[in-house]
Amino acid sequence: MTADSELAVTGEGVTAPQGFEAAGVAAGLKSTGKPDVAVVVNRGPLKAGAAVFTSNRAKANPILWSQQAIRDGVVEAVVLNSGGANCFTGSFGFQTTHQTAERAAEILQVSPGDVLVCSTGLIGTGDETFRAKVLAGTEAALAELSPDGGIAASEAIMTTDSHAKRAVVTRDGWTIGGMAKGAGMLAPGLATMLVVVTTDAVLDAKELDTALRRATAVTFDRLDSDGCMSTNDQVTLLASGASGIRPDLDEFALALTELCADLAQQLQGDAEGASHDITIQVTHAASVADAVEVGRSVARNNLFKTAIFGNDPNWGRVLAAIGTTQASFDPYAVDVSFNGVRLCSAGAPDRPRDEVDLTPRPTLVVIDLKAGDAEATILTNDLTHDYVHENSAYSS
Amino acid sequence: MTADSELAVTGEGVTAPQGFEAAGVAAGLKSTGKPDVAVVVNRGPLKAGAAVFTSNRAKANPILWSQQAIRDGVVEAVVLNSGGANCFTGSFGFQTTHQTAERAAEILQVSPGDVLVCSTGLIGTGDETFRAKVLAGTEAALAELSPDGGIAASEAIMTTDSHAKRAVVTRDGWTIGGMAKGAGMLAPGLATMLVVVTTDAVLDAKELDTALRRATAVTFDRLDSDGCMSTNDQVTLLASGASGIRPDLDEFALALTELCADLAQQLQGDAEGASHDITIQVTHAASVADAVEVGRSVARNNLFKTAIFGNDPNWGRVLAAIGTTQASFDPYAVDVSFNGVRLCSAGAPDRPRDEVDLTPRPTLVVIDLKAGDAEATILTNDLTHDYVHENSAYSS
Repeated sequence: MTADSELAVTGEGVTAPQGFEAAGVAAGLKSTGKPDVAVVVNRGPLKAGAAVFTSNRAKANPILWSQQAIRDGVVEAVVLNSGGANCFTGSFGFQTTHQTAERAAEILQVSPGDVLVCSTGLIGTGDETFRAKVLAGTEAALAELSPDGGIAASEAIMTTDSHAKRAVVTRDGWTIGGMAKGAGMLAPGLATMLVVVTTDAVLDAKELDTALRRATAVTFDRLDSDGCMSTNDQVTLLASGASGIRPDLDEFALALTELCADLAQQLQGDAEGASHDITIQVTHAASVADAVEVGRSVARNNLFKTAIFGNDPNWGRVLAAIGTTQASFDPYAVDVSFNGVRLCSAGAPDRPRDEVDLTPRPTLVVIDLKAGDAEATILTNDLTHDYVHENSAYSS
Repeated sequence: MTADSELAVTGEGVTAPQGFEAAGVAAGLKSTGKPDVAVVVNRGPLKAGAAVFTSNRAKANPILWSQQAIRDGVVEAVVLNSGGANCFTGSFGFQTTHQTAERAAEILQVSPGDVLVCSTGLIGTGDETFRAKVLAGTEAALAELSPDGGIAASEAIMTTDSHAKRAVVTRDGWTIGGMAKGAGMLAPGLATMLVVVTTDAVLDAKELDTALRRATAVTFDRLDSDGCMSTNDQVTLLASGASGIRPDLDEFALALTELCADLAQQLQGDAEGASHDITIQVTHAASVADAVEVGRSVARNNLFKTAIFGNDPNWGRVLAAIGTTQASFDPYAVDVSFNGVRLCSAGAPDRPRDEVDLTPRPTLVVIDLKAGDAEATILTNDLTHDYVHENSAYSS
């Protein structure tokens, strides 16, 4: 099927597959007046859905709602808002989410329990004004539903994103489309990561769930921009079955992984204030879990991240970071390369640092643990002046 | 004894107690020409010592050496250098540490195995030039040994420190003195933390070890400036017994804790680029371990740290951080206060944010978990433009 595959960085996103309509409107939640409420509606014939959620114990009201709503595997629509996280807003906030699902369900003539809700923005935002605007925005968005609405929807979920993120993967007769917002990851997440993925393939909720967990485990879960886990992260996958084609589940999972990897790279490339997109490749680990732990320890090390910002291939900080893990390896056997130049060999200096050019944005760090045959790749960003600026000014 | 106690922010540090001599000299390890080799020598009559080390598995050569040398509880001297960490420098680097101890032992007419070595600076630094300068510096420092040398020694161990850190605690007839460098903590550490503490009290090595572990567990171990663990951290405690007085062990441990807390506060106050000294007090935890885990999760959260830099009392980021822990508490029962103003009550907004003034450098965040009777305090700093600048330019 590879010959038929096509990866589009943009495209219509969630409305690229048949059987979906979407819209995005401005409901006044953002002080800028930009679009802030989006809806994605599944017109069927199938109404299958699956979702994965933040693993943070501090979960926003839309997460608490959607975790219940997804249980039966039936999803008619997803309502998403930016401009307020509706997290730690008490029972009033949960009622807001509930009312949002009810309002959408009433208009669509479906059950409220089949409407998922996602929110993103400042924690603690969710008062009467917020509720009124979200409900009005939901109505307005549903009134503008269109089979071409994927672009508008992707713009309405943006927060600190500098551009909308969409991807489309096409196979033989069926399509997967997706949109994402956020400059982070599923767990943990820099800013809330919201993703909606649609397909017109014929798959049931259990199959979608299996494929979604396989795909997110090696894409969004391995994007670790700043080590901070959001309260609102949610990735939702909807199938309309409108293509009439039932793909092989492995083939579907691979295509879905390709799409999620594309969206994850778009998130990485737009991470708040970042000046480098860093790929940390951990090779010859004793297990995939070890490789992920080692990669993540580097991705979360502020001294490493500031060094990359300064174009400094500081391999010592890599070793100091991985020395804090419980992974199986001998710190004095490890090789570390930056952009193809091996600076550390068996725990001692190798090539001179000035052979490494870190001025390009893409940065590759390879850590060879010499402890086995497993490997994993973690995506992260550098820690910059702009990161500090954007996040210190976020709520003001 | 409280009436007799006296806490001095400066003083002579390690030479304040009887029975110790010290010195600090410039050996050319620092490109600035500033002092970079220090020695502290115990003149006895006792030669008891104890030490705690970084828990990083990637340990520098001086750590590997000192961990062996401390085993018999006998310490004659400590040689410390800044201007190079001698970490990941291979067997040549270990030989440099070994030769440093041998050179000092030869001059002092003691066993090399009773000389501890500490290094701080860039990882990967430890070539022939480094070795020659460290050995020459050790000789030069030992030639300048003086009972008033504590100040010079404290200056020679500085790296990015803006000022030297010393403290003295006096009790009835005996004294504890200490010096510290670094803008971090024992485990983990922003920059390497090196501490030497001396006392003229009569205590054996086992007693020193017990008191040292008690003191560091609630002081240096709870200072978490940037979540990064050094390869070279070491805290050494030496007893000369020169006062002839044998204190009650509990009383000594309390006095030692007081001194270590003072030095830890000095380290926090001089953390790289910081503009706020943040005290995170976790109350009503189910256990001390839970309280420490919760406090540390906030101390390491970049979004929280950048918010404080921007004088933004962003309690939502506190809750998002603690939601990632395994500690026992209900996220929707928690209260969070900033500088005495309760912004979040039972997981919902309480007082308005603008009642909080975060312009002063000292910042108090209280997290009431409502889950038990234990508590713990973690000290940290904010994440600032200057932190990014200093750490991106460190090795250049």
